[in-house]
Amino acid sequence: MDVLELIKGISFPTSTKIVLLAIDGLGGLPHPDTGKTELETARTPNLDSMANKGNCGLMDPVIPGISPGSVPGHLAILGFDPLIHNIGRGAMEAMGINFDLQADDVVARGNFAIVDKKGIIVDRRAGRIPLGQTAELCKLLDKMEIDGVKIFVHPLGDYRFIVVFRGEGLASGVTDSDPQINGTTPKKILPLTLQAEKTALVANKFIAHANSLLSKNHLANAILLRGFSKRPQLPSLSEVYKIKAAAISSFPLYRGLAGLVGMDLLNSGTTMDDHFATLERHFAEYDFISLHIKHIDTAGEDKNFNQKVELIEQLDQHVATLIKLKPDVTVVTSDHSTPAIMGLHSWHPVPVIINSPWCRPDGITKFSEYNCLKGSLGRFPATHLMPLAMAYAQKLGKFGA
Amino acid sequence: MDVLELIKGISFPTSTKIVLLAIDGLGGLPHPDTGKTELETARTPNLDSMANKGNCGLMDPVIPGISPGSVPGHLAILGFDPLIHNIGRGAMEAMGINFDLQADDVVARGNFAIVDKKGIIVDRRAGRIPLGQTAELCKLLDKMEIDGVKIFVHPLGDYRFIVVFRGEGLASGVTDSDPQINGTTPKKILPLTLQAEKTALVANKFIAHANSLLSKNHLANAILLRGFSKRPQLPSLSEVYKIKAAAISSFPLYRGLAGLVGMDLLNSGTTMDDHFATLERHFAEYDFISLHIKHIDTAGEDKNFNQKVELIEQLDQHVATLIKLKPDVTVVTSDHSTPAIMGLHSWHPVPVIINSPWCRPDGITKFSEYNCLKGSLGRFPATHLMPLAMAYAQKLGKFGA
Repeated sequence: MDVLELIKGISFPTSTKIVLLAIDGLGGLPHPDTGKTELETARTPNLDSMANKGNCGLMDPVIPGISPGSVPGHLAILGFDPLIHNIGRGAMEAMGINFDLQADDVVARGNFAIVDKKGIIVDRRAGRIPLGQTAELCKLLDKMEIDGVKIFVHPLGDYRFIVVFRGEGLASGVTDSDPQINGTTPKKILPLTLQAEKTALVANKFIAHANSLLSKNHLANAILLRGFSKRPQLPSLSEVYKIKAAAISSFPLYRGLAGLVGMDLLNSGTTMDDHFATLERHFAEYDFISLHIKHIDTAGEDKNFNQKVELIEQLDQHVATLIKLKPDVTVVTSDHSTPAIMGLHSWHPVPVIINSPWCRPDGITKFSEYNCLKGSLGRFPATHLMPLAMAYAQKLGKFGA
Repeated sequence: MDVLELIKGISFPTSTKIVLLAIDGLGGLPHPDTGKTELETARTPNLDSMANKGNCGLMDPVIPGISPGSVPGHLAILGFDPLIHNIGRGAMEAMGINFDLQADDVVARGNFAIVDKKGIIVDRRAGRIPLGQTAELCKLLDKMEIDGVKIFVHPLGDYRFIVVFRGEGLASGVTDSDPQINGTTPKKILPLTLQAEKTALVANKFIAHANSLLSKNHLANAILLRGFSKRPQLPSLSEVYKIKAAAISSFPLYRGLAGLVGMDLLNSGTTMDDHFATLERHFAEYDFISLHIKHIDTAGEDKNFNQKVELIEQLDQHVATLIKLKPDVTVVTSDHSTPAIMGLHSWHPVPVIINSPWCRPDGITKFSEYNCLKGSLGRFPATHLMPLAMAYAQKLGKFGA
């Protein structure tokens, strides 16, 4: 029996409340000078107190050794096995900006990038150009038509955008052009199936034309595409868990995912202040609120160890607000590690706290990767997180006679 | 490869002996006044000494967060994944009283209950009425015939009974009438498949007729049915593990399960004294004896913390008998937690000891949930327990060349 089916069969609605604090990229690695991770370095009295009274563990978003992208990482902490529900990034991003994706559209996530005269990628994020300027660049490329396929280009945050291909005979099974590292040339898009030949052809033509339009631009002179996908079908959280669920996040991709599983998308602002004010404002209305913090992951991706530490400390102060709301169950975790010394999503397991009056307390004194290793949750796959949170919230009946 | 297939391929008969002490509902939660669980409160010198020389861990009967019924809980500790072998309670209970269940029979587990004038359930266990009186009530309902289906009603312990439906065109895919909580009305039984329409129809008619027969009764005035099922097919323990296996238990459901996997059902009596005397008497005859203790779970379900502590202490004295028999491997564990402060089967992982001369001792000084967390077995799924016990008993060859 599939775990989602199992949960669906035994879940029932209650008045108890669950808050999931999803700290993007929280897990880290020791700083070479101190031997301490970002989380071990930060002063986090509020998180420490939650860990002390709760149950802790180390969680693998997919399986050990796998560095998850944002989609599988977040899917897993909502209880969807990412090896079963493999969803393309393009479709996710489109939903994040409320783009009206139609059933037969194929969509890709794009980066504006800088290439040198030989076509080698110098900066695959074009210096993280700001949204206003990205929107200008998108206008240059928007609403082309190639071989009868209409092409829409819409900005995401920073240097990111989506490309939507709309027309007859398109399929999502094509490779990426984005090699995901600097110092190499973009890759030609190849079809993975016969049905996807037209998509690969049109996408390669689009890239060539876009790059020629951008060739004299000082902000970015190339585009990189990845994650070609169609709109996916997932069961809703209300169907599986019998909860009224809302998401707080400023990150389009995360908002897209939340919408896809039927969560209400709250007007969340962009700062941690905004996010926690949103939580306070809407706490009474929902059984389940997921609060996603993107800022800490960005510091990790920028290899800024100290900034990641500072942002963790800033978050910890906001956690006091969360504690005062007294949810029946609080879950603190992450979709993946982003160690500042690597500057990348990594495969290292993420720390977890589950805090509820129904815990046998583990007695951990400081919330950290190392201490979570000693917690009673042990090392576990992320798909077990929601069943645990649901159990502590007493939203699950007994399985079997 | 399925784990059972793996074990079947590498197991071989030996003269070594395994005793599995399955303490129903052992796991608990801290008492609010002392911060100690039932097991932490109890004086258990014999179990402590076994834990000290053995390996300890915390085990999830199904997956984390899932509160198992007795069937999945016990199946898992015998090595059968309950998500693969999902067996209805009715079939299990029927086997527990040696009812001659035929291949096409559909059987449900019933409760005698008390409902108020509006039909709302006041007590779904009818005050735990004793077996003698339950047998009288069953006689009132036994041997009806509805729409050509013969219906047999046989008493189990306390307020419990089975209903067997025998006739053409019956299927087990129907919902329960028992909502498993007080304060609500019984549910109408609904078919889950087209094949099960007749079963639902007959079962609803039977309930209506039974309730009218009971309407003036002072002990119970309603019945609740759940776990509609047919006789399941499972491989025997002798086939999988190459062991001669016996079960000691007074609990019909557990005896049913033991019979289903080919264990000899020993004449076990009802007290702990009886059970351990049975163990002494039959120890020489078997390679594997499972000794199931129900009493401690009952105290937990009755929310009687002190009685649960006393019964754990009483059990510990009997453990001296077990130690004297010197099995090659002793396993001490539970099918699920039943914290007295909850009064329900819960999802909390259960403590485990595996004691054998082939252990690297963990050096735990007191057998408890908290200390098991520090043991070398870590937190693990119950389906790993039998492979471990078999390995320590040196009954498994090498896997692969």
